[in-house]
Amino acid sequence: MLYLIGLGLSYESDITVRGLQIVKQCKRVYLEAYTSILMAADQDSLEKFYGREVILADRELVETGSDDILANSQEDDIAFLVVGDPFGATTHTDLIIRARELGIKVEAIHNASVMNAVGACGLQLYNFGQTVSMVFFTETWKPDSFYNKVMENRRIGLHTLLLLDIKVKEQSIENMARGRLIYEPPRYMDISTACQQLLEVEELRGEQAYTPDTPCVAVSRLGSPTQSFKAGTLRELAKYDSGEPLHSLIMLGRQVHELEMDYLYAYTDKKEEFKQAVLADQEFFKPPPPVFEEEEFSD
Amino acid sequence: MLYLIGLGLSYESDITVRGLQIVKQCKRVYLEAYTSILMAADQDSLEKFYGREVILADRELVETGSDDILANSQEDDIAFLVVGDPFGATTHTDLIIRARELGIKVEAIHNASVMNAVGACGLQLYNFGQTVSMVFFTETWKPDSFYNKVMENRRIGLHTLLLLDIKVKEQSIENMARGRLIYEPPRYMDISTACQQLLEVEELRGEQAYTPDTPCVAVSRLGSPTQSFKAGTLRELAKYDSGEPLHSLIMLGRQVHELEMDYLYAYTDKKEEFKQAVLADQEFFKPPPPVFEEEEFSD
Repeated sequence: MLYLIGLGLSYESDITVRGLQIVKQCKRVYLEAYTSILMAADQDSLEKFYGREVILADRELVETGSDDILANSQEDDIAFLVVGDPFGATTHTDLIIRARELGIKVEAIHNASVMNAVGACGLQLYNFGQTVSMVFFTETWKPDSFYNKVMENRRIGLHTLLLLDIKVKEQSIENMARGRLIYEPPRYMDISTACQQLLEVEELRGEQAYTPDTPCVAVSRLGSPTQSFKAGTLRELAKYDSGEPLHSLIMLGRQVHELEMDYLYAYTDKKEEFKQAVLADQEFFKPPPPVFEEEEFSD
Repeated sequence: MLYLIGLGLSYESDITVRGLQIVKQCKRVYLEAYTSILMAADQDSLEKFYGREVILADRELVETGSDDILANSQEDDIAFLVVGDPFGATTHTDLIIRARELGIKVEAIHNASVMNAVGACGLQLYNFGQTVSMVFFTETWKPDSFYNKVMENRRIGLHTLLLLDIKVKEQSIENMARGRLIYEPPRYMDISTACQQLLEVEELRGEQAYTPDTPCVAVSRLGSPTQSFKAGTLRELAKYDSGEPLHSLIMLGRQVHELEMDYLYAYTDKKEEFKQAVLADQEFFKPPPPVFEEEEFSD
């Protein structure tokens, strides 16, 4: 049996009671260690907490060595630990399809992921559109597929959750070309970088999917002891020092309710300015005023 | 301190280790018992599992008696347990805003909710638009605000998660009018009812937000021991016996990837027919073919 076990967002103890029971009883336990990190735990602290060995699974192992991970799991129980939920932002569909092909049963133990826990900022999950991802830009590579998606969401009034790039165990182009297994230090995109990249793309595209005055919420270290939210315009957050990782960004849509606003005010010292920015931004993508049929006015 | 603790989807042991530690140490523990249910647990089994008393909080208590819930929680620790994640589909924003007004600290212990765990069906969470809700229709009340939202999602190619009505501790109109506190038996919308209501609204509106041949995935008892998925057209699922609650429904959008399809085939005996339905449905809301600027063809 292959168990896919979500670890939640931060602490060792964010695993569910059922998840922990399974981890303790499995023959081998892998920790997926390249798409996210637990903010208040690491391999060492997890091994102590579980009282057993945990094997780090990097991208190479998961993508090319999945048969090693799945070895003997027709008979043995194997656990594959994933930060957040096993079916969160990054899914491990290939691993599951491979397990099915080998006749291995698969069970998921769910947990919180940024996709649902982001509701903690006070915005209703109902009012979010599609989630998008943003990678670190380079001089020559500035992928902006998120731009059209943000536009689509905002056209229908919805908020957008932007997941920010995490680079763990990446090689430089030079080291990759020379076949040297030397890895760059991990990098986690912060709020100001994300906002600057958003502004850069809007400058290039100029289609006003958003403006420098569009209101956003910076989500930092969600679910960790130092979780924090900051509300401000894109221009303001482009200068915001968001501190330690991990971060996500929410760009607001037109549909902001009074209760949501009340909640967001706690995340800004400039309540009145933020309110005005939200009201001004609501003018974008406003539906046209209703057209009345002529007979409604006759007789 | 007020702790909002997510219970996850099904088992007593779906609570996180950290959540359980807090429950054990709190002065009072409330269980929100009107917007959802745990599928493999109830008040009794939770009390046994926690080794302590759990107070059921119905709608009246939460909405009009929140000061009772919050009594003394400036000094005492109080836990408020919510099925799924505390900020899942239904948020308890009023309770939190009230706590803030009273100077009470609030901490959330997150967990899985249908909003993220639904990724277990194999569809990428990235490709979902806004989530909608559907209530039980009556002879005279058929609210269809979901229709425009499904249309908005499908216009941009996205899947829609439909959350289905749960009626717990509801009074009949007659009993309400007579002020009798007699409650109807709980009702949970099943897949066939949801699909029939969808077909009824499309029949009335006729704007082809979807058709009887639009592909859907029935999600039953997500995260429970008897979890099941069924892929089929709306017309087929309108006759599907989905069994015990809880259920949700996914209506597919145009953006279905090969890997997602491979995954969904496991949920139908009519693989080829389902594939054809997906291909045919992709013709709806297809973007117009790109228009080339004339100079691209000149010289």
